[in-house]
Amino acid sequence: MAGLSARALSGMPEVSAGQDIAELILAALDGEPLRAGQVLAIAHKAVSKAEGAVVALADVDPGPRARELAAEQGKDPRAVQVVLDESEEVLRAERGVLICRTRHGFVCANAGVDASNSGAPDTLVLLPRDPDASARRIRERLRELLPSRRAGDGTAPAVLISDSFGRAWRHGQLDVVIGLAGMQPLDDWRGRSDARGLELQATWLAVADAAAATADLARAKDSREPVVLIEGLERFVTPEDGPGAAALMRPLDEDLFR
Amino acid sequence: MAGLSARALSGMPEVSAGQDIAELILAALDGEPLRAGQVLAIAHKAVSKAEGAVVALADVDPGPRARELAAEQGKDPRAVQVVLDESEEVLRAERGVLICRTRHGFVCANAGVDASNSGAPDTLVLLPRDPDASARRIRERLRELLPSRRAGDGTAPAVLISDSFGRAWRHGQLDVVIGLAGMQPLDDWRGRSDARGLELQATWLAVADAAAATADLARAKDSREPVVLIEGLERFVTPEDGPGAAALMRPLDEDLFR
Repeated sequence: MAGLSARALSGMPEVSAGQDIAELILAALDGEPLRAGQVLAIAHKAVSKAEGAVVALADVDPGPRARELAAEQGKDPRAVQVVLDESEEVLRAERGVLICRTRHGFVCANAGVDASNSGAPDTLVLLPRDPDASARRIRERLRELLPSRRAGDGTAPAVLISDSFGRAWRHGQLDVVIGLAGMQPLDDWRGRSDARGLELQATWLAVADAAAATADLARAKDSREPVVLIEGLERFVTPEDGPGAAALMRPLDEDLFR
Repeated sequence: MAGLSARALSGMPEVSAGQDIAELILAALDGEPLRAGQVLAIAHKAVSKAEGAVVALADVDPGPRARELAAEQGKDPRAVQVVLDESEEVLRAERGVLICRTRHGFVCANAGVDASNSGAPDTLVLLPRDPDASARRIRERLRELLPSRRAGDGTAPAVLISDSFGRAWRHGQLDVVIGLAGMQPLDDWRGRSDARGLELQATWLAVADAAAATADLARAKDSREPVVLIEGLERFVTPEDGPGAAALMRPLDEDLFR
């Protein structure tokens, strides 16, 4: 069947600090070859845990602002301190959720800090420090490990790191890209013509976010399947690593809702 | 290959007013059977055009507010009048784009009114008047036409109608669901436990929006392929039509950004 397909890799272990995600992926593939046009979508928690981007609540000493917000919102002041440490700005605090702009520039609930699936009780998982750099490192490591390197090919699949973010006007969360290497984040049709030669309006497609959403549909949320292999996106996969997920962030001065 | 797959149907004609989308889909499938667990994702313009939700600019007499906004934003006052007619509220007008809350409750650019792919020059395509009802009608019509009806089965694939919406804090557009029949719009894991027995936080997945994004990746924007067949989402497909895309709209009083 032509078109698009996505499949979660079974056999990925629980990831812990210092582990090599690229090696774990190749082990899970169990000899199945990777190709340059494929996209490997990885749930960020696996990357964060491998990088040690984890905080034990017992090590956190909450400051006065964290204590105040925690009391208002019915949260653990230590968890709130971790969220504040990850945030440039708290945009809203309501119903126990802090909507933050993270140090990276992402707008999301609790600055992406999450307790679930952290691998240990009373431990919080942060977003990777620089998710685009994480994606580039994993891709480079795949390039080193893949047999194509020995063939002088040097190609590697694209690497996409995702997290689930809420939306301003719609219920529910959707996976979006927070780190990216080797894939166009946006497909720019502005000014191009449609099938009838009319100019397409406002057609600037967030294809990497669509790929992240696709990957999340291919796994069950409780299934410990952080890695999804996507085929059929060859047209967006690039030999160079490209601008990364940073290109998807709307700059502060273009935010229509401040 | 297990997992998720999506494929655009080739052979869909340009749709015009009064045509039967279900019949066109079955003709494009050319005898390939449809199954109850599949999802048919349809770009809304095909549905709008079939329903005659199209306005000729020559028939529009812009009022004073449309003339004022059009002058400010450098737009055709007749096109602005059409956008105003489709809107409950204009949230922002900036850089030639009106961010509106539509009569249905969707927040999107220009109330979903679009000139491209409209099938005729100087013609604008609106959103379907009641996209959930459109999805239910198309599903019911498929049920009537499918051979399974004769077998007393009565099952039909889910029908999903999509449009491309911009996002508050991220560049680019992503397809989201505006009409839905026979698929859970949201997958609610709130209060359920993750793989380690910890409570999952804020895990309420907009699976129908993820399916819409997946469908859009399976077609090229200029390819006149409004219909995409998705397989692998059986767990979200329901015999009853369900709450539709209306369930994805965040009510006004929960909008954090007013």
